[in-house]
Amino acid sequence: MTGSRAVTSPLLGPGPEFDFIRAIARALGSAAGPLGDDCALIPDGTTTLALSTDVSVEGVHFRRDWLAPREIGWRAAAGALSDLAAEGAEAIGVFAAVTGPRSLAERDLVELMRGVGDAATSVGGKVLGGDLSAGTQWSVAITVVGRAPRPVTRGGARPGDGLWVTGALGAPRAALEAWLRGDPPSADARDAFAHPVPRVVAGSWLAAHGATAMLDLSDGLAGDARHVAAASEVHLDVELDRLPVAPAVAAEAGRLGVVPAVFAAQGGEDYELLVALPAGFGPAESEAFRAAAGVGLTRIGAVAPGVGVRLLRGDDEVVLPGFDHFR
Amino acid sequence: MTGSRAVTSPLLGPGPEFDFIRAIARALGSAAGPLGDDCALIPDGTTTLALSTDVSVEGVHFRRDWLAPREIGWRAAAGALSDLAAEGAEAIGVFAAVTGPRSLAERDLVELMRGVGDAATSVGGKVLGGDLSAGTQWSVAITVVGRAPRPVTRGGARPGDGLWVTGALGAPRAALEAWLRGDPPSADARDAFAHPVPRVVAGSWLAAHGATAMLDLSDGLAGDARHVAAASEVHLDVELDRLPVAPAVAAEAGRLGVVPAVFAAQGGEDYELLVALPAGFGPAESEAFRAAAGVGLTRIGAVAPGVGVRLLRGDDEVVLPGFDHFR
Repeated sequence: MTGSRAVTSPLLGPGPEFDFIRAIARALGSAAGPLGDDCALIPDGTTTLALSTDVSVEGVHFRRDWLAPREIGWRAAAGALSDLAAEGAEAIGVFAAVTGPRSLAERDLVELMRGVGDAATSVGGKVLGGDLSAGTQWSVAITVVGRAPRPVTRGGARPGDGLWVTGALGAPRAALEAWLRGDPPSADARDAFAHPVPRVVAGSWLAAHGATAMLDLSDGLAGDARHVAAASEVHLDVELDRLPVAPAVAAEAGRLGVVPAVFAAQGGEDYELLVALPAGFGPAESEAFRAAAGVGLTRIGAVAPGVGVRLLRGDDEVVLPGFDHFR
Repeated sequence: MTGSRAVTSPLLGPGPEFDFIRAIARALGSAAGPLGDDCALIPDGTTTLALSTDVSVEGVHFRRDWLAPREIGWRAAAGALSDLAAEGAEAIGVFAAVTGPRSLAERDLVELMRGVGDAATSVGGKVLGGDLSAGTQWSVAITVVGRAPRPVTRGGARPGDGLWVTGALGAPRAALEAWLRGDPPSADARDAFAHPVPRVVAGSWLAAHGATAMLDLSDGLAGDARHVAAASEVHLDVELDRLPVAPAVAAEAGRLGVVPAVFAAQGGEDYELLVALPAGFGPAESEAFRAAAGVGLTRIGAVAPGVGVRLLRGDDEVVLPGFDHFR
């Protein structure tokens, strides 16, 4: 999520934010588990447990005048559940550690927890526990737990695979740009920001149908693709003209004088899945996916030998600046 | 932990803080799992997964001029691991969601995570993941995951059982009282506050030796005992004269004009285990426990029919005011 970063592996892409995380991993040494993916994976008999923690902080990830308490709860939980989706895991449940000012109305906190519960039940999970504390600002740390019959990490993409993405990109960023400018966002953009859909059904389907690598887009395609490239030790070519750009993007991108696909590639909090699939996965399989998961799947590029990511418009490479959330 | 409260069941003891949690549980309805213990318990083949979330917030649970970053990390993780101990669970690992001001030195954050790692490895666990975010204050949300071969809830105490407690009580409160007065705490008191030992080995031993109910003392014996009484639907008689009071308590209790055992019964963050054991559990078993767990076990009372808690000095009942952390 914006402003935050999973403590994951040395296999992360470049950037000062990720250098910070690498410093932690070095300091922990053998005290750290096998870090390095959307979730921690714990082998468990014939299946694998998947767990992940995400924190949402007022003023960093949301503002209270943008979202109602129930939306804050949904969004925090959905963002964390998206990490289960990215492993191909089914949800068991969520834990919520919530801080808020002492003046916090009981009603607001109950509504926030309702939103957490809505998101959990939307993917077949439950609220399994939590903790409450006073604090100077609202903060919601969500831990998700699920089971992955066949976990899909970021590290399995192979040259020759196709690169695909679920849904449409850029609408949450469109909402953010409008708010930051002081305007109300369009209804579509606002809904995409306030009510992201964790792609748990989609992720399970993809895991069962050959996905070789998967990740959820929390920092924007341009940056997140680098993690797949680094973890899989492959090169990714992304054809920007193929990007499924959300309708809400056009107006906001136009204001900034940015091509919509570039705007969408630099968005954050899309919570769509970026997935590598074998070359044989084509339009027929994509249609079967849509029927099963209720969301589209678009081929946006290819996996090649090498290491790195190239964003292409036609034959030209587009170079986007790095992205750094924490500092 | 002080200032925080696990979102648990309608079986909690009385108090406005717990009314708040009951309101959340009501609002969640069927979206909530079977809440009501130190950990959520997820059956998992021949064993049971135990998970819990705890949040520590600057200015509520600690002050930065009291503790070094590594101690903040240890204490946050140890407090959460204590919930595993209270179920008789072994630790698998911890997740840390950390927020801190943008000015936070990388060194401090790395040290904090070292402390988290120290606590995890002290009980055979690892740091399995985390998340970082900017925020206005330091906050550390720890989620622990473990396995309980034979989980011990708060709800199994039976009339006739003995009531026991591990270790000695009151030293963390002694440190807190000194700090709040503006004095440095004694070395013993400070160490108990900064470096609580999660009783994971003790909890596993007790679970394997007949414990019928168990809970870790985070809000003070006087309040926490009520949760065991409510969940087990029993009456607890606590003989204050039997309480194992930490040596650091005497001076601080004296300043407040409070009997040391009463001071210790109202402490918080002791992270010792309160446990009900069958009547046959006696001095020999207690010695075997000490040899195995490296900490003492003291019989402080008995479980009787009825519902509630009585704190006794000789034949007289001591009535302590209720305790409310969140408001």
